[in-house]
Amino acid sequence: MTKPLGFEKPLGMRDYLPDVLAKQRYIEQKVNTCMTRWGYQEILTPTLEYYDTVGDASATLDSKLFKLLDRQGRTLVLRPDVTAPIARVVSSLMKDEPRPLRLMYNTNVFRAQQNEAGRNAEFIQSGVELIGDATVDADAEVIALAVASLKAAGLEEFKIVVGHVDFIEGLLEETLSNEDEREKLKERLHNSDYVGFRQDVETLSISDAEKSRLYGILKLRGGAERLAEAEALTINGRARKAVRNLQQLWLALEAYEVTDSIMFDFNLLSSLDYYTGILFEGYAADQGWPVCGGGRYDRLISQFGIDNPSTGFAIKMDRLVQASPLNPEGAEKKIYIIYDQQTRSEAIRKAQQLRGEAIVVTGTMPPSQPVDEVIDVRGGGVDV
Amino acid sequence: MTKPLGFEKPLGMRDYLPDVLAKQRYIEQKVNTCMTRWGYQEILTPTLEYYDTVGDASATLDSKLFKLLDRQGRTLVLRPDVTAPIARVVSSLMKDEPRPLRLMYNTNVFRAQQNEAGRNAEFIQSGVELIGDATVDADAEVIALAVASLKAAGLEEFKIVVGHVDFIEGLLEETLSNEDEREKLKERLHNSDYVGFRQDVETLSISDAEKSRLYGILKLRGGAERLAEAEALTINGRARKAVRNLQQLWLALEAYEVTDSIMFDFNLLSSLDYYTGILFEGYAADQGWPVCGGGRYDRLISQFGIDNPSTGFAIKMDRLVQASPLNPEGAEKKIYIIYDQQTRSEAIRKAQQLRGEAIVVTGTMPPSQPVDEVIDVRGGGVDV
Repeated sequence: MTKPLGFEKPLGMRDYLPDVLAKQRYIEQKVNTCMTRWGYQEILTPTLEYYDTVGDASATLDSKLFKLLDRQGRTLVLRPDVTAPIARVVSSLMKDEPRPLRLMYNTNVFRAQQNEAGRNAEFIQSGVELIGDATVDADAEVIALAVASLKAAGLEEFKIVVGHVDFIEGLLEETLSNEDEREKLKERLHNSDYVGFRQDVETLSISDAEKSRLYGILKLRGGAERLAEAEALTINGRARKAVRNLQQLWLALEAYEVTDSIMFDFNLLSSLDYYTGILFEGYAADQGWPVCGGGRYDRLISQFGIDNPSTGFAIKMDRLVQASPLNPEGAEKKIYIIYDQQTRSEAIRKAQQLRGEAIVVTGTMPPSQPVDEVIDVRGGGVDV
Repeated sequence: MTKPLGFEKPLGMRDYLPDVLAKQRYIEQKVNTCMTRWGYQEILTPTLEYYDTVGDASATLDSKLFKLLDRQGRTLVLRPDVTAPIARVVSSLMKDEPRPLRLMYNTNVFRAQQNEAGRNAEFIQSGVELIGDATVDADAEVIALAVASLKAAGLEEFKIVVGHVDFIEGLLEETLSNEDEREKLKERLHNSDYVGFRQDVETLSISDAEKSRLYGILKLRGGAERLAEAEALTINGRARKAVRNLQQLWLALEAYEVTDSIMFDFNLLSSLDYYTGILFEGYAADQGWPVCGGGRYDRLISQFGIDNPSTGFAIKMDRLVQASPLNPEGAEKKIYIIYDQQTRSEAIRKAQQLRGEAIVVTGTMPPSQPVDEVIDVRGGGVDV
């Protein structure tokens, strides 16, 4: 025999063995049932897209894209996110369907990794898009659905942290005319580098009152009481409108009775630059990374020629599975039937009878998996 | 605004819109439940694999592989089939688990297409692998499971056509010493070109008795009665052993009470050269292409260094969905709740109550989807 083939997998690629996958599928199904019950319909787009359509619309860094050439020499990408492909579909195949469209998905996305840092290059996302609805009720619906989805996955302690793109943008605009200075401060906030933020503000040539307004941003994390404080910091239309938008959101979320799971963070900024309004991240207790993220994107779909104000979120299923206490084990009874050649027909018949109610394995050797019951149909009645 | 992005998809790529996907998911779930009930556990391997491991073990033609380079300059392929990646996993991560292993999968595979012939370049397969069991009972189990899976998907009229790699190989070996002549005849059989087969046999320098034996192969399609006829054609060990193997298979399939769905075709040859014994294809009434295919592959896994005689099958889900009469429509009641700003809380509360039992959509405009019930909670009691 020639030298055996190797077992290696490409960087960041992973095998899901049965135990891990069973939990993942169980939780996917809980989440998908929840989304379906809210009227969202599943859609599936291809793994490969053109670089100059979906690749261009996606917010994924070029260096993180998996690229290949097709036979015609055009560049293809492996789906880097799901929102951009859905934007393509709702602007073409679904352009004549009445709005709002409620779509959900459960699929894998790809991010090329540079080194062996243990980051996944392929991971599964479940999410929703509410397309063609500019109201704050739509934002409230997807946030309430994010809460319901995490609860459906068995999470008990988690928070959805909500912010607004226009608050920081507006507040910085009304204080600093220099764009570079604004970008630098946003970078600090995005990295949660509050010490650096304070140092930067200290060196700015603005009045003490203005500096203290900028420092004020850092305290704006908490419940509904932060709304009034945030409004007090604003002067111009953009930041103030953002706070008013969040006030309306809060009222709608009260109607959904989910405000226990919500907190505001007026510092929240996303690395995805397609968000245009309310944005949010979900954190499970004990996890440093968000388990889900979403927000309003009113301009993404317009890139395909049709205006469709939209909002949505995506759950990183790996993280949700890790955080979830649910366990699919024991959901179904497992029976093992042992037979020999004389009793094969009997074993098979018995198996067929039982398969309506339980998982049934037949064989001539002891089970390789834990089972709930062993039935031995052999004439000798050998103990096991 | 700049020129809108295009809507094109790469060659052979497809979007699954909600109606089509709902049927596909419904049938996938029926099939997966069936496979689970037979003791098969789901596994998931990555989309990308190394060309020189899984790409090499796969039976897919090189020209049909989607290839790309990783940052280290190694060639990657998009998963061309599922059996080769599973062979990798059972030889590494699962090498110490007791045999037999019963694994199932439900995933997409890729085949690069050369032109716009309407063939899919990405399609979904559900299948099983029974690994580490060399008995004919294992072959019978997967064939009976193929029957059960197609029935679970609602198919009423279908046939599983069964053959054996060694029958044709053995019969040709005992008649023709020239390998080129044998290959040419196999090619004719593989393409169902029986006229060409007869013409080729006519020109061979063999006795009339031998020619008539070769013509005899063409008649070997039908039920159990063909087994004796096939045996009568054989002389040498290889072809005769193949017939004996199929006789044992038939007895085992009788125990499963599935022989109504089975027919033999001693001409059956596969384009996948990894099959080493019994092989089969499933045909739904009115479809010219097989909806599923499988067989025994005793050497594939050995390429990864561990000997594991195995058998399995894969269902092409697109074809199964097309052939299936099942319809997920109406499986769940759909309710639409219309509200205005004064009645929002009431609408949301009512929706939350009903979501346990039905799909519920709330909104301020008429439904975009067909619904079973419309509830209007607005004070005015506006008719819809």
